[in-house]
Amino acid sequence: MPIITLLTDFGTADPYVGELKGVILTIAPETRIVDITHGIEPFNVRQAAFVLQQVWSRFPAGTIHLAVVDPGVGSQRRIILGQYAGRFVVAPDNGLLTWVHREHPPEAMQVVEDRRYFLPQISTTFHGRDIMAPVAAHLANGVKPRSFGRVTDRLEMLPIPHRAEPTERGWLGRVIYVDRFGTMVTNIREEQLRPPRGEQRSWEVLVNGVTVGPIRSAFCDVAPGTPLALIGGSGLLEIAINQGNAAKRFGSTGDTCLEVR
Amino acid sequence: MPIITLLTDFGTADPYVGELKGVILTIAPETRIVDITHGIEPFNVRQAAFVLQQVWSRFPAGTIHLAVVDPGVGSQRRIILGQYAGRFVVAPDNGLLTWVHREHPPEAMQVVEDRRYFLPQISTTFHGRDIMAPVAAHLANGVKPRSFGRVTDRLEMLPIPHRAEPTERGWLGRVIYVDRFGTMVTNIREEQLRPPRGEQRSWEVLVNGVTVGPIRSAFCDVAPGTPLALIGGSGLLEIAINQGNAAKRFGSTGDTCLEVR
Amino acid sequence: MPIITLLTDFGTADPYVGELKGVILTIAPETRIVDITHGIEPFNVRQAAFVLQQVWSRFPAGTIHLAVVDPGVGSQRRIILGQYAGRFVVAPDNGLLTWVHREHPPEAMQVVEDRRYFLPQISTTFHGRDIMAPVAAHLANGVKPRSFGRVTDRLEMLPIPHRAEPTERGWLGRVIYVDRFGTMVTNIREEQLRPPRGEQRSWEVLVNGVTVGPIRSAFCDVAPGTPLALIGGSGLLEIAINQGNAAKRFGSTGDTCLEVR
Repeated sequence: MPIITLLTDFGTADPYVGELKGVILTIAPETRIVDITHGIEPFNVRQAAFVLQQVWSRFPAGTIHLAVVDPGVGSQRRIILGQYAGRFVVAPDNGLLTWVHREHPPEAMQVVEDRRYFLPQISTTFHGRDIMAPVAAHLANGVKPRSFGRVTDRLEMLPIPHRAEPTERGWLGRVIYVDRFGTMVTNIREEQLRPPRGEQRSWEVLVNGVTVGPIRSAFCDVAPGTPLALIGGSGLLEIAINQGNAAKRFGSTGDTCLEVR
Repeated sequence: MPIITLLTDFGTADPYVGELKGVILTIAPETRIVDITHGIEPFNVRQAAFVLQQVWSRFPAGTIHLAVVDPGVGSQRRIILGQYAGRFVVAPDNGLLTWVHREHPPEAMQVVEDRRYFLPQISTTFHGRDIMAPVAAHLANGVKPRSFGRVTDRLEMLPIPHRAEPTERGWLGRVIYVDRFGTMVTNIREEQLRPPRGEQRSWEVLVNGVTVGPIRSAFCDVAPGTPLALIGGSGLLEIAINQGNAAKRFGSTGDTCLEVR
Repeated sequence: MPIITLLTDFGTADPYVGELKGVILTIAPETRIVDITHGIEPFNVRQAAFVLQQVWSRFPAGTIHLAVVDPGVGSQRRIILGQYAGRFVVAPDNGLLTWVHREHPPEAMQVVEDRRYFLPQISTTFHGRDIMAPVAAHLANGVKPRSFGRVTDRLEMLPIPHRAEPTERGWLGRVIYVDRFGTMVTNIREEQLRPPRGEQRSWEVLVNGVTVGPIRSAFCDVAPGTPLALIGGSGLLEIAINQGNAAKRFGSTGDTCLEVR
């Protein structure tokens, strides 16, 4: 049974998620639909791009990720079917694939354009339902990727702070994501903080110029309510508060600068 | 594998949705449960009725829609099993079926009353779990609709502004739904705006007496932040703001009047 | 097809739920994943313990409940695989099992410790993804409970007000849960309010010393907007307002005292 995951900014109160699911199950009744999130902030392609990158490769090969955050719906923006490490992504070509694409070379990319695989009636405001969901469902039914449209090697990319900048003494990074717990995820990677073999190195982390101390190994290394820096579940440096909310404490909703030295 | 969809006002933080799912899977282990929404505003039957109408026919024939927004639970209000175009709906008889029913003649309607298909213990506050979920599950198992109770042709209907009113120069309509993006969905239908064959016609749309211009074909026909009128994904006239929130701008949370002329 | 349910405090906007689901489906592709809730308040083990207790036994035997509210992740707190009435629970040993455990003697409890069933790389901040989800998935694949670690009979328990206190004239209870509708669920049980056989007894319920009247049988026994006491769907005494929000009216967010006399 093929898997189609859903990642949208539709929220869960409106009919839109149900409409997507209904369209998919009508075309491909055997599909297993898996909700990733419908809680992307409306129109926030940047947030969606990061969340997609965190989850896409956790699913088995063959999984079809349907990602719809689409403020340009009805314009000339293209719809892309990308293949990455055996998984498929169907998404508008508006930067949503930026993180996945930077991390992993695509095996193929098609422009979605063959109307045979769309719903018969296409609205100008809901291509998720009328184009992307049916394409994902036909793909789940075994239609070959090449059938949906011509190959492309062009992709819209967001100007994301993909990698931290090296400084004389360490790294200058950015907060790229703030999660529900208020944990601030940065673009500084675990491997950037590994000292050369045989050397010892201890880092000091500063947020907006204020130190949060060394890099800890777990929340419980500090008392509840105390800020700390640690390597999070995504292999990125995070600023957190043990059982508290770091983003509230530091006033951060993203793009905050930090230094590791 | 039969599909049971869930549409409730239970929210997703409490145990109630889990209880429904557990009851269904205990009775009908092969069922595929599909969440439509649990985010209906508490007790808002009107909102649920609209959302149900938007999604019910998107699912394949045989789908069982379980819709529980039930402020009258424990009273004498009946529970209905309706059949519409090969799909089933199990819901309290409180107006939740108003939109579906107005749009589509039912193939059959039963009153749910045979206690053999209920849980052995029935609370007075949670008929969704104790009556409606088991009935949906037994239906998924192949129990015939007639088994659940006697046929009825009576149904509670909400006084919804189902159709816009014609005026001398056009239509007087109402906002019937506001979605997460702040888009205001109205009761003016695409077909009402089609000019007689061979004629040209351009419309002007006014919200609370203020013009939002002609009917556009896509969000991107106006600059970001600008209001516009367009035909939405449900075939209804919508008032939106390109990448913005129209309901906030116009102060609307429903029932706002608008004119097309 | 085995069922794995998910109960977390991850929210639904972040990548974490998707990561759990991907890990499970990669290891055990046939699993049916059922969302119970991801809306537990961050770090609120107490709330999670109650919600788990309400739903666990509603699912069929063999169901695996994966419950991750884990403020102590990365510390020495253990991870437990418990078996209760044929269902399995995988959870951190932080009190999350308190309610289930008090209501039902476990058939067996293991400490989860065999790294063969973990992901190869284990973060210090996301044991839900790296340990508990893979363990649940291997369990779904038929790995025997004993394989995951040694048997234990010790369990962290929260000091919850499990049972109401008898008084001379009745019971002194506590609000233990407030739901989305503002209904206040208490720890006074239906069976505690049953008079000895042959006797009649009518109760008066007081919240913070203010009477809310006798115990009613349904919401509609009082006018909309009026408070009432009744036995809720979980067999516990509840304070509600017909079509209104009792917690807002009474200023309760939990732990409020009430008296039945």
